Amino acid sequence: MAQNYIVRNLVRADAAVVDALAPLGVATVHESAGRTGLVSPAIVARQDNVAIAGSAVTVSSHPGDNLMIHAAVEVCQPGDILVVTTTSPSTDGMFGELLATSLMARGVRGLVTDAGVRDIAALRRIGFPVWSRAVHAQGTVKATGGSVNVPVVCAGQLVNPGDVIVADDDGVVRVPRAAADRVLTAANARTANEENKRADFASGTLGLDMYNLRSLLERLGVTYVDTLPDEER
Amino acid sequence: MAQNYIVRNLVRADAAVVDALAPLGVATVHESAGRTGLVSPAIVARQDNVAIAGSAVTVSSHPGDNLMIHAAVEVCQPGDILVVTTTSPSTDGMFGELLATSLMARGVRGLVTDAGVRDIAALRRIGFPVWSRAVHAQGTVKATGGSVNVPVVCAGQLVNPGDVIVADDDGVVRVPRAAADRVLTAANARTANEENKRADFASGTLGLDMYNLRSLLERLGVTYVDTLPDEER
Amino acid sequence: MAQNYIVRNLVRADAAVVDALAPLGVATVHESAGRTGLVSPAIVARQDNVAIAGSAVTVSSHPGDNLMIHAAVEVCQPGDILVVTTTSPSTDGMFGELLATSLMARGVRGLVTDAGVRDIAALRRIGFPVWSRAVHAQGTVKATGGSVNVPVVCAGQLVNPGDVIVADDDGVVRVPRAAADRVLTAANARTANEENKRADFASGTLGLDMYNLRSLLERLGVTYVDTLPDEER
Amino acid sequence: MAQNYIVRNLVRADAAVVDALAPLGVATVHESAGRTGLVSPAIVARQDNVAIAGSAVTVSSHPGDNLMIHAAVEVCQPGDILVVTTTSPSTDGMFGELLATSLMARGVRGLVTDAGVRDIAALRRIGFPVWSRAVHAQGTVKATGGSVNVPVVCAGQLVNPGDVIVADDDGVVRVPRAAADRVLTAANARTANEENKRADFASGTLGLDMYNLRSLLERLGVTYVDTLPDEER
Amino acid sequence: MAQNYIVRNLVRADAAVVDALAPLGVATVHESAGRTGLVSPAIVARQDNVAIAGSAVTVSSHPGDNLMIHAAVEVCQPGDILVVTTTSPSTDGMFGELLATSLMARGVRGLVTDAGVRDIAALRRIGFPVWSRAVHAQGTVKATGGSVNVPVVCAGQLVNPGDVIVADDDGVVRVPRAAADRVLTAANARTANEENKRADFASGTLGLDMYNLRSLLERLGVTYVDTLPDEER
Amino acid sequence: MAQNYIVRNLVRADAAVVDALAPLGVATVHESAGRTGLVSPAIVARQDNVAIAGSAVTVSSHPGDNLMIHAAVEVCQPGDILVVTTTSPSTDGMFGELLATSLMARGVRGLVTDAGVRDIAALRRIGFPVWSRAVHAQGTVKATGGSVNVPVVCAGQLVNPGDVIVADDDGVVRVPRAAADRVLTAANARTANEENKRADFASGTLGLDMYNLRSLLERLGVTYVDTLPDEER
Repeated sequence: MAQNYIVRNLVRADAAVVDALAPLGVATVHESAGRTGLVSPAIVARQDNVAIAGSAVTVSSHPGDNLMIHAAVEVCQPGDILVVTTTSPSTDGMFGELLATSLMARGVRGLVTDAGVRDIAALRRIGFPVWSRAVHAQGTVKATGGSVNVPVVCAGQLVNPGDVIVADDDGVVRVPRAAADRVLTAANARTANEENKRADFASGTLGLDMYNLRSLLERLGVTYVDTLPDEER
Repeated sequence: MAQNYIVRNLVRADAAVVDALAPLGVATVHESAGRTGLVSPAIVARQDNVAIAGSAVTVSSHPGDNLMIHAAVEVCQPGDILVVTTTSPSTDGMFGELLATSLMARGVRGLVTDAGVRDIAALRRIGFPVWSRAVHAQGTVKATGGSVNVPVVCAGQLVNPGDVIVADDDGVVRVPRAAADRVLTAANARTANEENKRADFASGTLGLDMYNLRSLLERLGVTYVDTLPDEER
Repeated sequence: MAQNYIVRNLVRADAAVVDALAPLGVATVHESAGRTGLVSPAIVARQDNVAIAGSAVTVSSHPGDNLMIHAAVEVCQPGDILVVTTTSPSTDGMFGELLATSLMARGVRGLVTDAGVRDIAALRRIGFPVWSRAVHAQGTVKATGGSVNVPVVCAGQLVNPGDVIVADDDGVVRVPRAAADRVLTAANARTANEENKRADFASGTLGLDMYNLRSLLERLGVTYVDTLPDEER
Repeated sequence: MAQNYIVRNLVRADAAVVDALAPLGVATVHESAGRTGLVSPAIVARQDNVAIAGSAVTVSSHPGDNLMIHAAVEVCQPGDILVVTTTSPSTDGMFGELLATSLMARGVRGLVTDAGVRDIAALRRIGFPVWSRAVHAQGTVKATGGSVNVPVVCAGQLVNPGDVIVADDDGVVRVPRAAADRVLTAANARTANEENKRADFASGTLGLDMYNLRSLLERLGVTYVDTLPDEER
Repeated sequence: MAQNYIVRNLVRADAAVVDALAPLGVATVHESAGRTGLVSPAIVARQDNVAIAGSAVTVSSHPGDNLMIHAAVEVCQPGDILVVTTTSPSTDGMFGELLATSLMARGVRGLVTDAGVRDIAALRRIGFPVWSRAVHAQGTVKATGGSVNVPVVCAGQLVNPGDVIVADDDGVVRVPRAAADRVLTAANARTANEENKRADFASGTLGLDMYNLRSLLERLGVTYVDTLPDEER
Repeated sequence: MAQNYIVRNLVRADAAVVDALAPLGVATVHESAGRTGLVSPAIVARQDNVAIAGSAVTVSSHPGDNLMIHAAVEVCQPGDILVVTTTSPSTDGMFGELLATSLMARGVRGLVTDAGVRDIAALRRIGFPVWSRAVHAQGTVKATGGSVNVPVVCAGQLVNPGDVIVADDDGVVRVPRAAADRVLTAANARTANEENKRADFASGTLGLDMYNLRSLLERLGVTYVDTLPDEER
């Protein structure tokens, strides 16, 4: 079996940078990171109109076993987001209201998991946001070791401990810790630029003109016709 | 490669007919069209309590590429619904707030797509309804040609440009343009009839009696017993 | 073909016990039943913040055919929950507003189905809760026999007629009728116990200490380190 | 937690009946059992041209844990088939060449599992047939209790210990022990009847005539036309 | 309900053209048709090393009901391929050895279905090739009407009666009847061209040079480096 | 957009170590690597009875675009295995006989891809093994940049360029380059040990005794009974 570790120390991104990424949203941050870092759309926001950012504390658990989530709580700090994966696919409800209460007591901002959550109505009521593959009440045991704060793959995306996680209604994106500053700058610029574009679009400007796409269509051989030729029907 | 076309002209159904179909809802319209036209349940309403109808402007895109959506905006008119498909399966977020703003400026009523959307919180906020296979922030390029206003298959359903699309919380149904009038008449009749049935059901009448099903059960050999015979346990 | 039966008589659990299970919720009831009885997470609550419990009236239908749901209505009593399965996988909308109206007239509390439902906005409006595999408007016929109040498998879970069904935002759990009393006692105890735990977690106590997990981690060979060893990166 | 049991004694169907069911095949046995008992098509034969029948020894395991398979081996007898389920969905490779060797030493005829298998090339080489949801090498632990020879639900189908399992290239069907005799008689009759039908079909007789379906089509309003009416295109 | 039709007459493509398409294979035919016409990869060849082409006789069935397949047999001619869809998703085994025997007696070359097949070992033994979504022994009834030789959507692809179907180990492609001649010409040219390319590739020529892609990579800003820059790790 | 790179130089594991891993197989290598490194079971061997090992050359492609596979061929060396991922989910047939011919000319041993392949019959005929998510003939373009020899996530598993890939009928496992030597030693030991176990199992020894599991079952409270207690039925 693999050696399992609980890594106590985590290098986090600058708190001001992390906090500034939250309101920019997943789509903008993903674009500003060069279209990298997105978690699979199988991981779904379990509440509406919530946008958070935080530093990833990662957990690798045996399926059907939430022992390592308990171990992870102790190394969390205010501003963190817990990222939980299993060593093979699982939809079990590894996480519920009690663990959320425990994490909220430590200032943790939310949970992203490749598996399932339960007590979903209570989680919404107490305001602890979660992104998960499933909602399932299936109970788990505490019997098999795993690791905390090692690199994990969560729903198709590599997450290193200390990476910045941004999550909103669109899903979840990971920004490498070292890139957080650069991505924030790019995202702020993009957001400013989008304000202008939004105004232009609202006033009727077409994307074809805004992005100069007419010549591209022509170069690609896309043909304007009034009606579809018969042989194409 | 296939020749790609942008077809400018669209024959639409009568606007009054289209508008009258919206409040009748997907289930009633589907029944009134002879139980035809339903899009797969994999295409999900991304907001609650919205019912629209409009004329289909269709888009066939390369996966991961939203160039042709921009091309389609120009041929849209007030009352249209954009129907976007990809030439192979994709969950990429081809559509977001900026394109919605552009479509709203042209009076388009909503989007139905076999792929993904993003900026979902913003779309709800600005009131542009979408039905999609996924919510994913994944960015797309503008590099490969496709077509606008050609027949497409969207999530298992053939949609011709100019067909009437009805969409609500139950999903999406397509009515052939030429059948819109006939389907509206049938749907109105059905709705009136359902009012009566609803009252009957509410007062305790059984479907067994309303639909005269007791003799059918008997003919099918379904047997009433007080308790299940032992050999069937 | 199999002989099909409609079983009229149903032995139900004590109504007071059933009613007391509803507010305890699916996760607690599942735990209190020894982590048994959960329906698959593919069966999703189609409304928020609803928790019900009732006695199962079961239906086994041919796919694409809702004849037996109509037959089942007659044998329902106040406090029942209808559990509908198909003999092979189906997402058809076998159930909608009219059938809900009929069931409400008989005091039925909700529907759990391995297939699809439609009129979902209306179902929310009239307050009839449903848990289903799909939302689809696809119409069904009334042509093939099936059974009412026989044992069924619903989304991976055996349900006998008269079993107690508890359903909330987390999903659906089944409690064998004969175990309802014992499960209620255990669930009440568990809920009381969780109140204390919640307070402890809120005040900062760790699960590691509350559940005495530190020695387990040690026995499993999970190692605390300050930083991850190089060879594990 | 639930009490877990290993049940030593199993009432099996008559060996001659079990053996006679194997060559009749899954489709015929399923029909002869009144179209009941089929396991989901998600459970796939992992070898070609194998047909077996045997008595079910059932296993309920924690996901990611094959402890109870080892416990089950001891209670197996020649002619049995092991049926393994997990308490929540799992694709882990709980079973491979060593366990197959152990089961072959006891005369067990095959494995049906709702989870995964590994060493698939070796299993084919040594001639131990398996039906599984997945092929995955993922290793499992031996840490959590489960049960042997209790009723289980395997891929949507209830299986009681001692039931007859028939498995071939088409999948897996379960026959209740008490019905095995009756189903064999029906299956033999059906097979004889199919011989005649096959000859008739081969000589050009149509199913429309053989099953007398022309009047049914007429009664259902299905209309013969030479070409499709224009309004239906 | 929709009016259902059995359309007796079918305009087929030239037999010589159809026959010439079979050995060219699905991938080549798909490319030669402008990358159109592919059925979803969910439809899987159920045998190895078989390539066929034929004229589509289409069937639209109610799920769980194979009545219309029997009706379709009568209108099939030598060289046809049966294309079976259901009006909503189904994996039932609508088709098995007896129907295959009947179709073989009429010279039909194979079956493509959006649903399930059974008797798969026998189908391979008698040499009747099938492409299907599932292998499942689940029996079907003959109770509800449908249509023969109307346009259908099969696994995401529109198929009109009389279209040419080409199917091999890669899957299934549809060629519009009117395009068959043109596609054959293009496919023959492509095949000849691929012979040359294959020889070039085998002798070590790179696609980068053969397709002149080096300048494209440069234009796209793809950069050659000896080792990955640190900030990208 | 992200900067894209083609990294020319690859540090590979010792060729003798790589070659020695192939016959040990995926399950044994996975266990010997501490149960780490397995690719998802969604990635399926497209041929039987093939076991290979090689050094990973990685490709990150835009979906529907195989430009970067062509770029990767040039940096491949004898003994390599190509590992192809897309930046969002895709089942397109990015790879077929011509690219296989090109790779075979360079001594590449096989392909592992998170997307689709085509020409599958030809690939089997020429003996180039592939592991893929899908078989689909869908054609791809060459229009958008990507990267070669950067870290990728392939079906849930991180793969760094130069890692050792082992693939057989069970699927695909990745061994970090630096761990290859250590894993080979462990795998050889495990294989020797399994020989003994296999003989013991074949002679009737139970896993319960071999692994000393009887006391564990007792400690877990698993109870042996002759028949299941009534209250558990």
